Amino acid sequence: MEQAEIGLIGLGVMGSNLSLNIAEKGNKIAVFNRTAEVTRKFHAEAGALQNQIVPCETLEEFVAAIRPPRPIIIMIKAGDPVDQQMEHLKPYLSAGDIMIDAGNANFRDTMRRFDNLKDSGLTFIGMGVSGGEEGARHGPSIMVGGTEESWKRVEKVLTSISAKFNGEPCVAWLGENGAGHFVKTIHNGIEYADMQMIAEIYGILRDGLGMSASEIGNVFGRWNTGRLNSYLIEISEKVLKANDPITGKPMVDVIVDRAGQKGTGKWSVIEAQNMGVAATAIEAAVAGRILSSQREERVAAERIFGLPKAERPKDGMAFLADLENALLAAKIGAYAQGFAVMAAASAEYNWNLPMPTIARIWRAGCIIRSQFLDEITSAFTKDPHVANLIVTPAFSKMVKETDGALRRVVSYAALSGLPVPALSSALSYFDAYRRSRGTANLTQAQRDFFGAHGFDRLDGVDKHHGPWGSGLEEFA
Amino acid sequence: MEQAEIGLIGLGVMGSNLSLNIAEKGNKIAVFNRTAEVTRKFHAEAGALQNQIVPCETLEEFVAAIRPPRPIIIMIKAGDPVDQQMEHLKPYLSAGDIMIDAGNANFRDTMRRFDNLKDSGLTFIGMGVSGGEEGARHGPSIMVGGTEESWKRVEKVLTSISAKFNGEPCVAWLGENGAGHFVKTIHNGIEYADMQMIAEIYGILRDGLGMSASEIGNVFGRWNTGRLNSYLIEISEKVLKANDPITGKPMVDVIVDRAGQKGTGKWSVIEAQNMGVAATAIEAAVAGRILSSQREERVAAERIFGLPKAERPKDGMAFLADLENALLAAKIGAYAQGFAVMAAASAEYNWNLPMPTIARIWRAGCIIRSQFLDEITSAFTKDPHVANLIVTPAFSKMVKETDGALRRVVSYAALSGLPVPALSSALSYFDAYRRSRGTANLTQAQRDFFGAHGFDRLDGVDKHHGPWGSGLEEFA
Repeated sequence: MEQAEIGLIGLGVMGSNLSLNIAEKGNKIAVFNRTAEVTRKFHAEAGALQNQIVPCETLEEFVAAIRPPRPIIIMIKAGDPVDQQMEHLKPYLSAGDIMIDAGNANFRDTMRRFDNLKDSGLTFIGMGVSGGEEGARHGPSIMVGGTEESWKRVEKVLTSISAKFNGEPCVAWLGENGAGHFVKTIHNGIEYADMQMIAEIYGILRDGLGMSASEIGNVFGRWNTGRLNSYLIEISEKVLKANDPITGKPMVDVIVDRAGQKGTGKWSVIEAQNMGVAATAIEAAVAGRILSSQREERVAAERIFGLPKAERPKDGMAFLADLENALLAAKIGAYAQGFAVMAAASAEYNWNLPMPTIARIWRAGCIIRSQFLDEITSAFTKDPHVANLIVTPAFSKMVKETDGALRRVVSYAALSGLPVPALSSALSYFDAYRRSRGTANLTQAQRDFFGAHGFDRLDGVDKHHGPWGSGLEEFA
Repeated sequence: MEQAEIGLIGLGVMGSNLSLNIAEKGNKIAVFNRTAEVTRKFHAEAGALQNQIVPCETLEEFVAAIRPPRPIIIMIKAGDPVDQQMEHLKPYLSAGDIMIDAGNANFRDTMRRFDNLKDSGLTFIGMGVSGGEEGARHGPSIMVGGTEESWKRVEKVLTSISAKFNGEPCVAWLGENGAGHFVKTIHNGIEYADMQMIAEIYGILRDGLGMSASEIGNVFGRWNTGRLNSYLIEISEKVLKANDPITGKPMVDVIVDRAGQKGTGKWSVIEAQNMGVAATAIEAAVAGRILSSQREERVAAERIFGLPKAERPKDGMAFLADLENALLAAKIGAYAQGFAVMAAASAEYNWNLPMPTIARIWRAGCIIRSQFLDEITSAFTKDPHVANLIVTPAFSKMVKETDGALRRVVSYAALSGLPVPALSSALSYFDAYRRSRGTANLTQAQRDFFGAHGFDRLDGVDKHHGPWGSGLEEFA
């Protein structure tokens, strides 16, 4: 019997869908689940794909069914279960076999797992898979981290199952050990920021302009034909226009405004901090979710403070155009921050992350897929080592065209009591980034005053303290 | 010979000053430094305090000189050196002896060190000391974490050396193990935010209103007599009015606008993330320092984008009043966030942190000391378990009086191209916090659309998905 090209452990929704995708693209796959009944049922329901799928009831049988060196995808709950599964599997494997974690792992776990296998002859791939359940089934964006040799072994299968953008596969080897999971984490961080910014614009349309859900849906629908064209804008229209089957009201008006957060947003912020990179749009987005979850506190606070009445903008049509441009300007800031975090991590961990490739494989299959990412791909292809996306010719032009709108929108929201944490963070990021003379000279003077921290002088003179030694007597 | 009441290892500037402070307040202290010459020199120069100081050249001699159970302050470079010093010291100690780390330790290290000593009969205090070198010499704010028993042993000495606010000592036992260093970390995080907000207001005065350094110094001087009265505002006036002895120009105009960051700002953000608490003002402040350090990139970006011309506000005097009130409103947000992080950590680590006490011991001795902290002390004393500082009667009144000014200032800065990341983050924090109906309902709808994450309904009906199953076909 012909051996399977790849194996997969864990037939939950994600694992099942990934397996069907692999089989459908002409790859033979061996599958295993802790509960054999699940495996049998999965195979029984695989229809025309049954011949491509080898259901296995023991790990021995499973491993024997795969062509060495064996790539084995582990698609189970992230965390300890992955370590346990790896331990169970290890005795059955031979030199060169590859364990592949396709879950949303913290890249630090991936680094550890990779290192732990170093002297075993086995190796490890940490693989970020974006696009949710349906992406797994029909074409996800896949971010691979591991040795180049192990990548070569899985390249064909992963290429066949990945999403395609204009025919180009959305999968790539991004670097050693934790590179794939790190990039997936930042992808999610950017997704947080993108969604938060859309929600803030929605809030202005709803609470500032007094528009109904379906009217707002129309606005997003129109924007989706322009420069904001993207999956998230597209589905914004769809969910805003959907009606609740039970009450007949717009669906969004029935949904509680409380959004949970999984680990990746938080991890993005923590790693940005560890690397010393400003990622305020992602930070604002995580905070937005946190505050959304504190609903009881919010209700109590509104009782104390009330809500200000938002003035309608004088020229409604002009303001709508401003909102569209503001969202684009802010989005540029968020993506610039995300890529800056990856650039820093690339240097820190010697990954040599290929920025144009990352943008390229995000153009389809994943939640943040968009035309915009095609433009980022071009910009980074022209200048892969640019300091910041904002200063590339294409994006600096876009920022110049749109930052005025972002200013007016942030100003309007501030005066109207409408929260725009991510939009305003992106604006401040841009304004701080493009100002050669900032205000940290005052901070440095203060720190020297109270802690003798010292400073540098603009004229290069080799003196590092101010004439305020006597101020130190303050504490006496 | 009468034994010393306490010992101290590490006669750098901080250790020397702390030792002199301890001796000056009538406590006999044994001191030790790795290099005996340093110890001898320190003692030789101690003048009238020589009799209170026992210089020791061996650890054996040092430990013998202290009254058991021996409290021994370790004041050396944070990190590994502390662990090494503890290992060297350990063999000389007896049951009940207390090793005290008075450096700026990460509270996670403090937790580990405390735990590691658990079965040794020895114990550990992690002690945050704020106020810089001069605070150490003449009266710091001291935040103590450890067992209550070990606190009792050092209470008298620490009380004698601490800063006093209206006669009340700025020292307290805050809880077990890492409580003291955690609170010190958040103190520093708040300090970052406070300083960033002052720098942003300075930027508006300088680049928006076109004022000179000394004129701005006068403004801060005036504000220091009002509700902003605080050490940081006071020294802002001083450094802004100081002239460079070399060029004769205002000192701040000669200083490079590049501020470094030590670990505590970053740690504050990371722990806020770990706890799921919104701390956007601290995040904005850390990002502000990061961007300040990217000076070459900023210079290059200004060449591309130029700077917008800031319009002068129509009514200069009214706008100055707005700036004062805006700073107060934003500051309330920053402190509210810091205290919220501590409340979450208190629950997470079972510290039972006393919020009124924390505010109380920050009123003097430390960098953020202010009248404002006296008002926080009162607010938390009246309601120690309030959900957020913002909703206490005293502070909600203050916010109502000042948030309008913050809105106008953020609006002005946004339109003028002046970065106000911390001020605008505080405004958005308030606007999100006081709004019972936020915008995360759209986020939840999107997440359900692409990932079947589910949501809750406002009417409590037990259905958790929207009518957009077909949207999942998107990926096909």
